[in-house]
Amino acid sequence: MKLIIGNKAYSSWSLRGWLACKHSGLPFEEVVVPLYDQDWDKRREGAEFAPSSGKVPILWDGDAVVWDSLAIVEYLADKVGRDRFWPADDAARAMARSMAAEMHSGFTSLRRKHAMNIRQQFPAKRPDDDVLAELARIMELWAQARARFGGTGDFLFGEWSAADIMYAPVVTRIVTYQLPVARFALPYMDAVLNHKCMQDWIAGAQEEDWVIQQYEQPATS
Amino acid sequence: MKLIIGNKAYSSWSLRGWLACKHSGLPFEEVVVPLYDQDWDKRREGAEFAPSSGKVPILWDGDAVVWDSLAIVEYLADKVGRDRFWPADDAARAMARSMAAEMHSGFTSLRRKHAMNIRQQFPAKRPDDDVLAELARIMELWAQARARFGGTGDFLFGEWSAADIMYAPVVTRIVTYQLPVARFALPYMDAVLNHKCMQDWIAGAQEEDWVIQQYEQPATS
Repeated sequence: MKLIIGNKAYSSWSLRGWLACKHSGLPFEEVVVPLYDQDWDKRREGAEFAPSSGKVPILWDGDAVVWDSLAIVEYLADKVGRDRFWPADDAARAMARSMAAEMHSGFTSLRRKHAMNIRQQFPAKRPDDDVLAELARIMELWAQARARFGGTGDFLFGEWSAADIMYAPVVTRIVTYQLPVARFALPYMDAVLNHKCMQDWIAGAQEEDWVIQQYEQPATS
Repeated sequence: MKLIIGNKAYSSWSLRGWLACKHSGLPFEEVVVPLYDQDWDKRREGAEFAPSSGKVPILWDGDAVVWDSLAIVEYLADKVGRDRFWPADDAARAMARSMAAEMHSGFTSLRRKHAMNIRQQFPAKRPDDDVLAELARIMELWAQARARFGGTGDFLFGEWSAADIMYAPVVTRIVTYQLPVARFALPYMDAVLNHKCMQDWIAGAQEEDWVIQQYEQPATS
């Protein structure tokens, strides 16, 4: 398998696809396509790796091409067994899949106004109201998952799952922009940041050469 | 099982969830929550059916609650077997899952500017450039799926699948707003519109009492 990703410091969807590949346990080769080309004037997102939507991450596996992070999760779950990615219990899996889907299509204010930047920490500022509302929703989801299905484990559904993979970039954004969170979320966020795969990704981001100025700004307003 | 949906004429995500339930072959009860309340001044999307995101469709199945249409597809595929919803071939399934995910998170201009309205047909107008670009991408996806995996079947991957379910509301929008499409797409669109489940949904939409003025306008510009 070959996984096409963007800059490790900035590309949150790449992080999700990469965590999914790591979690599958299958060997894969990483190909990094910087989000901007050498002149920084043209955004690149791997369009040359058609037939994708021109966006990373993209997983190649023989004849199969998967060009979306949630689809990569499901594709890998098909290969290595659903239970490696999703809770076995029906009600827990229903919630985990719904949470993953909500992240996949939503939280657009948080994503737009607080772009992922793994290498930075900016001074805390009051986030915009739309971001605060999204953060409140995320806290609600995390609290419900942990309370109903977390058991004695450290993660949303006890063991590390696809739900944690989908929300991992949110955790890094909360740290980068020092966003306000509920107290119960702190040990969960620590567990995510200390997960072996996250540590590897963060180390990779530190070693990257690229610095893209527009990502190196604190959130506006 | 109980499926919470919005107005059949207007709620495109409800259509996807409903088609998925029908396709599962499992019995389910339908609960319609109008998108607006009696006074039309407050948008309602089923928030009372927590713990959802306040958006329809929502599937209740005992203790399990699934509040997103793509998650509903996967949840039902877990129950009745993946092959009922997704192609069995790895490369075909990789593409089908990626296409479904791209629909799930994308095509926002088409979705915003050409809201679903199953009961209407508006005079053709030149769509905005962002909509045209999205339509071109959809044609590309449909063409590739049909050419690579359509075989002798009528649908994207031969048999009716989750990919068709995800794109079904696009087909109705193309008809409603008389959007420009490639010639090859016409027989595919006919097949979707003539699918037994689509016919049932369309009949349901015709019988609905609600008329919401803001949905009864042709696309602007």
